[in-house]
Amino acid sequence: MSSPINAVLAHGGGPTAVINASLAGLVEQTRHNPNVRALYGAHFGVEGLLRAEFTDLLALSTSEIRAIGQTPGSAIGSSRRNIGEQELERMIEIFRAHDVHQFFYTGGNGSMNTALRVHQFARAATYDLTVIGIPKTIDNDLAVTDHTPGYGSTARFFAHAARDVGEDNRSLPSPICILETLGRNAGWIVAATAFARRDEDDAPHLIYFPERRVSLEHIASDAARVSAKFGRCVIAVCEGQLDENGQPFGAAVDRPDVPQHRLATNLGYTLARLLTEKTGLRARAEKPGLLGRCCGPFTSEIDRREAFECGIAAARAAAEGQSGHMVALRRHSTEPYAATTFLTPLETVALTERTMPAEWIGTESGAVSPVFLAWARPLVGEIAAYPRIRFR
Amino acid sequence: MSSPINAVLAHGGGPTAVINASLAGLVEQTRHNPNVRALYGAHFGVEGLLRAEFTDLLALSTSEIRAIGQTPGSAIGSSRRNIGEQELERMIEIFRAHDVHQFFYTGGNGSMNTALRVHQFARAATYDLTVIGIPKTIDNDLAVTDHTPGYGSTARFFAHAARDVGEDNRSLPSPICILETLGRNAGWIVAATAFARRDEDDAPHLIYFPERRVSLEHIASDAARVSAKFGRCVIAVCEGQLDENGQPFGAAVDRPDVPQHRLATNLGYTLARLLTEKTGLRARAEKPGLLGRCCGPFTSEIDRREAFECGIAAARAAAEGQSGHMVALRRHSTEPYAATTFLTPLETVALTERTMPAEWIGTESGAVSPVFLAWARPLVGEIAAYPRIRFR
Repeated sequence: MSSPINAVLAHGGGPTAVINASLAGLVEQTRHNPNVRALYGAHFGVEGLLRAEFTDLLALSTSEIRAIGQTPGSAIGSSRRNIGEQELERMIEIFRAHDVHQFFYTGGNGSMNTALRVHQFARAATYDLTVIGIPKTIDNDLAVTDHTPGYGSTARFFAHAARDVGEDNRSLPSPICILETLGRNAGWIVAATAFARRDEDDAPHLIYFPERRVSLEHIASDAARVSAKFGRCVIAVCEGQLDENGQPFGAAVDRPDVPQHRLATNLGYTLARLLTEKTGLRARAEKPGLLGRCCGPFTSEIDRREAFECGIAAARAAAEGQSGHMVALRRHSTEPYAATTFLTPLETVALTERTMPAEWIGTESGAVSPVFLAWARPLVGEIAAYPRIRFR
Repeated sequence: MSSPINAVLAHGGGPTAVINASLAGLVEQTRHNPNVRALYGAHFGVEGLLRAEFTDLLALSTSEIRAIGQTPGSAIGSSRRNIGEQELERMIEIFRAHDVHQFFYTGGNGSMNTALRVHQFARAATYDLTVIGIPKTIDNDLAVTDHTPGYGSTARFFAHAARDVGEDNRSLPSPICILETLGRNAGWIVAATAFARRDEDDAPHLIYFPERRVSLEHIASDAARVSAKFGRCVIAVCEGQLDENGQPFGAAVDRPDVPQHRLATNLGYTLARLLTEKTGLRARAEKPGLLGRCCGPFTSEIDRREAFECGIAAARAAAEGQSGHMVALRRHSTEPYAATTFLTPLETVALTERTMPAEWIGTESGAVSPVFLAWARPLVGEIAAYPRIRFR
């Protein structure tokens, strides 16, 4: 490229605690690229992109960008909108009109599919565009990458939630207390509640995984057994958990992928009612919900740093013209923890969902494999255990 | 008293983030009293007390007690059990058998009534017993005292929750998002979500107070108006909010005072469903629930310090033989904040519920009076505002 060009960053899907850290990394690295004049943030993802609603992120100072990089949520706004052929065409028109030749799209496997389509469409239209995907999802369900920025912080939130709700439940035992976590088809988040455990009677006493369907009878029998043993039972279950027939325990479940199913979720509450009916034990449910993906104070430090590094790597990849790739993370060592970024073709991650390997889920009800715990520990960070008074 | 005697501490009702700070204050001050040999913690409140299930808290080191004082939940366990005449008798027998002549009971207005009954029963039985109440409730509904230890931390949690859920909702707007807070009959907690506001379009856009019944039609009309204006609407409502007929919007509501009504709560979820029906707008609800009263990292520093001081004051009051009193807080100044403890007769607080003064609730839907905000600010502590990128 002879004269400087412009770039666009858009966010897709649900925000995370560290999506802004990726934005900050991208802006900081792009600042050093003399070939880029403006790096436009698209307001509310493809929604704003299709209206050319842009703000130049390079116009913000380094200290402003650093401060933004510490905040949860998306500072430029996001969207769940899917785009059709016409909109791909419109997008290229807008890019042409604004002299945009780099497009960064931060999101999960759905967004990576969109990025791939933009890349292919631009190629077919012989429009010079470098498309780079930046990984983001609390669900940790992207393929190829060791893990996804956003996951560690949500996992950290729910590990703390399980610890603290567990402490409350230990203080004033209630027979069944359900902690509903985020997570639809993959158990990565709910599994992390196991970091709240230290002693045998620590919450969560039971953890269920969406990778394994489970009957109400099974949960009821587990809960009755635990409650008989400890006088209380804390259950961690994710919003997407299904019963043995693939049904959500009679609960309305949020399915953003199916518009007519976009209902308020109530799995924890419905399960609590059903368990009380089945066991005669009083049950309640807590659902921190969205708080689990936007809670600033629980952000994992490694997660934030890696999200920032993914932004840097994306700017570098674009400078090298590596269109059609997503930045991914490769782990070199777990203790001490070391990971670096690399590039993977968008085809390898688009629309591909990675659930938890069967062997990382424990064999007994509620168990989590030590292999998972060792793998996830650096991402989640330390969950401090509370000191306690022991009665003999 | 000639030879050293023993003391008992019991916790009543739901735990808080700082009930252990009061325990720590009591233990540290009692340590300096040569007239007290053992300070027994009763395991699970009156439950353990009636079984003489005790552990001597003076046997723990100062550093152990300080560490316990930093943890949420009740380190000795609590109970919601109410006691009858027979159990009062049994209690005095146990006190006699264990040479207990000081009884500290930490709790809310129900627990203060129990403390009063123990005090009166011991008098009538001419058993030498000094009964001191230590205030504790997240609901802030105790009379006489300026505010109650436990409130500031829960208020701080929900102010942060409103800020962070608001940031998420700003990133990926959803038409209606309900944040269900703790609080049954008093609006002190839900009012504190107003600390999340800085800009006009900041969440929560609407706050409802249990002191004012409100119809579904009214909420629906408020929500539709806000959603039309900002493209989104975050509503803060407490679990005890009732409609214009005194009904909980068709939701099952937890009423620990009415055993047959001890159900899982679902006000936020039910309200979300009803609002969608009424307005056609998609609605979801988050319910952090118990997490709001046990979340260690959101503990308010002033709350923790005052809870500790209430424990100290209780030990002093007992040493002076001031039976039949509760420790209360008197505010001398709001800026700079200054408060001290004093004693109030248990009769003045037992079973008395203090709701929010009408003039502290704003006149418009969702408004909170600046008088409330000025009053609550030191208790809640600073809620940092996030920096933002503005699109023109």
